[in-house]
Amino acid sequence: MRAVDIIIKKRDRQELTAQEIEWFIRGFTQGDIPDYQVAAWAMAVLLNGMTDEETTALTLAMARSGEMLDLRSVVPIAVDKHSTGGVGDKTTLVVAPLVAACGLPVGKMSGRGLGFSGGTLDKLESIRGFQANLTTEQFLAQLANVGVVVCGQTADLAPADGKLYALRDVTGTVQSIPLIASSIMSKKIAAGAQAIVLDVKVGLGAFMKTLAEAEQLAHLMVAIARKTGRRAVAYLSDMNQPLGVAVGNALELREAIETLQNRGPQDFEAHCLEIASRMLVIGEQSPSMETAYQTVAQVLKSGKAWQKFLDWIEAQGGDLGVVLEPHRLPSSKLRQEILAPESGVIHQVHAEKVGLAAVYLGAGRAKKGDSIDYGVGIEVHRKVGELIQKNEPLFTVHANGEEQLSLARQMLSEAVIIKEEPIDPLPHFYGVVE
Amino acid sequence: MRAVDIIIKKRDRQELTAQEIEWFIRGFTQGDIPDYQVAAWAMAVLLNGMTDEETTALTLAMARSGEMLDLRSVVPIAVDKHSTGGVGDKTTLVVAPLVAACGLPVGKMSGRGLGFSGGTLDKLESIRGFQANLTTEQFLAQLANVGVVVCGQTADLAPADGKLYALRDVTGTVQSIPLIASSIMSKKIAAGAQAIVLDVKVGLGAFMKTLAEAEQLAHLMVAIARKTGRRAVAYLSDMNQPLGVAVGNALELREAIETLQNRGPQDFEAHCLEIASRMLVIGEQSPSMETAYQTVAQVLKSGKAWQKFLDWIEAQGGDLGVVLEPHRLPSSKLRQEILAPESGVIHQVHAEKVGLAAVYLGAGRAKKGDSIDYGVGIEVHRKVGELIQKNEPLFTVHANGEEQLSLARQMLSEAVIIKEEPIDPLPHFYGVVE
Repeated sequence: MRAVDIIIKKRDRQELTAQEIEWFIRGFTQGDIPDYQVAAWAMAVLLNGMTDEETTALTLAMARSGEMLDLRSVVPIAVDKHSTGGVGDKTTLVVAPLVAACGLPVGKMSGRGLGFSGGTLDKLESIRGFQANLTTEQFLAQLANVGVVVCGQTADLAPADGKLYALRDVTGTVQSIPLIASSIMSKKIAAGAQAIVLDVKVGLGAFMKTLAEAEQLAHLMVAIARKTGRRAVAYLSDMNQPLGVAVGNALELREAIETLQNRGPQDFEAHCLEIASRMLVIGEQSPSMETAYQTVAQVLKSGKAWQKFLDWIEAQGGDLGVVLEPHRLPSSKLRQEILAPESGVIHQVHAEKVGLAAVYLGAGRAKKGDSIDYGVGIEVHRKVGELIQKNEPLFTVHANGEEQLSLARQMLSEAVIIKEEPIDPLPHFYGVVE
Repeated sequence: MRAVDIIIKKRDRQELTAQEIEWFIRGFTQGDIPDYQVAAWAMAVLLNGMTDEETTALTLAMARSGEMLDLRSVVPIAVDKHSTGGVGDKTTLVVAPLVAACGLPVGKMSGRGLGFSGGTLDKLESIRGFQANLTTEQFLAQLANVGVVVCGQTADLAPADGKLYALRDVTGTVQSIPLIASSIMSKKIAAGAQAIVLDVKVGLGAFMKTLAEAEQLAHLMVAIARKTGRRAVAYLSDMNQPLGVAVGNALELREAIETLQNRGPQDFEAHCLEIASRMLVIGEQSPSMETAYQTVAQVLKSGKAWQKFLDWIEAQGGDLGVVLEPHRLPSSKLRQEILAPESGVIHQVHAEKVGLAAVYLGAGRAKKGDSIDYGVGIEVHRKVGELIQKNEPLFTVHANGEEQLSLARQMLSEAVIIKEEPIDPLPHFYGVVE
């Protein structure tokens, strides 16, 4: 087999065999096939597409390129969740302890934020002492003992995906639905997931801007799960406006705590209840969504999820003092409200613009490896469809510098559209693919 | 400017500016833009195409990546010719001294054979002592003193093209008409050509298999010449069957000598007269093709072209003894005729199959850097449309080993189709683009 022939086959829109894909990915991982050949191949994939069979073969090849975790000794069914990334999406912080408190252990490898999209690990690291890097042994032990663990992906998990993603990032080949789907699914499969709830964000603040793209990605990931003997259910959820109120690491952590204490924002709580219920169903802990929903709502209300959160944070070395007294979490020096310039109905709160404003404040990373400021961020006080009076607050900006504050104000004022005529609120979900 | 944005722009079918292309090629040549980014870009170019303006900008960027020759101190108008490569194409060997003998000096940089296609330098090097590598100073001096010089391209001529071609070769991005056109034209422009006769081969033994592709390439190269203030005329010439009789280095050199002595094959002589006449016209030495044709035919007949050939070979150190007594050129140990298995009309002499048979005999290179055997090759005794009787010779194979001979016999027998019904001869030319 020659790498150039595999490139030419894909260039000429022919279907690659599983054997060819496996050989190509193995050669790439081992350094036998150079970056320039893989870059040309990735561009051919982006422009010519791949069949579901090819994408599944790629997923498995990347999953098998490193360690394959097996969680079956620790959990009855290894259930995972994955969000494609959005603004204000702190769902894992609530859902992981909530599902664990319902009796289904959750062991999850998570990522960091990049660009306008936040990352679960960054939010957790706003807790002093929280340890995001665990060994496989620590991960398995905590999953068995505490029932919930969230940590960074180890370098040996799907290394081919890490290597391919780094190359895609610099060759304009990120925006390929088969490459995105196989990247996500390879990591989930390598991390031992048997059942996965996928939260495919769609809209202005998501990587998938249109419902058609999001549906395509959702269907593809569900198909990959089926073809590899796993199960997946995908939600198409709104990301035109931020999820919940808080955007920014400590702010979002605080909102997660409030939600676990039954005083979180309604839209975010509803989102968490849906995702958690679905995890119980595909984890075979509940016979139906109705039963699951009752269980989850009751466990949240009872405080057991909040207790599980505390156990989890403590197990990973986090300072419980700041969690129990969230005003001690990192905060900002400056705080300023942005007021409505006129009365009317909110027609848009542009999620990407809000996310980018948070990045400029220091809450996120313009590029990999940038340091972040845990205390800064934005509170979003109104959602699409709501009425607002002139001079009522639209946002509260938390900043650590006048210049950042001023730039964020500018960006946020461009994120909002207020009109006279009424408009329906945005739905939480556009559909479910299973 | 960021390389990844240039890749993305091309990926998304947007037109690149001349400035962007210039920056990208300069960065690549200097090693600032890595191979993997250029590979992804080349695949995007192959699949999405380029406009004539983009291709022209690429041509100029590659031409300017190294030394730019200026021949105007030595020749009134620097005229060049270029063939896209075929089987049995020894045209330069005749045309260069012929045009020079008509009073228009010809200084040309040529290439080596690769795959089924032969190279002028290899044919010349079958003459003992012939020096293909000249310095720029030697090149210019010989052009001034002798009026004809053909040598290898210096490393400093269009180095970006050399680097890009090497990358395209291993990334499945050779077969792109804009990339082929800019590769050819960048070298011609860097070598100082002001007027160029292009011989675009089309058919079974050419890189362009269809007339549509060949026309596209021809139009594009003529457009590039116009947009850069040069002049080009492109012939679309047949390469379904080999040109002339001889295929193989010393055999082809011998056929060129015979043609210069007015006893070459009719099809090849006609081809040379047409190309040479066109060079005189675009070199402004003749007012019309009719006049040019008379001049060229007369100069060939008179022996002046043959004398110019001898002066040329001598100037580059070639042993005139073997040229004057061609039986002393490298020859093969084994010689065998392949006879017609039946009587009928020749419907096909598949040029690529004949070319590959010659490669297997040792006349060409399977890959760059392979050594070649000057004495081996094939004589093609019949052309499409001609009658043949059973057991009359179709080919004579010149080989240096039984195994190669046997394999070549097999390949050649598959190259020929004989049928009962008559068929028209193949045309020499399918058209002229100017």
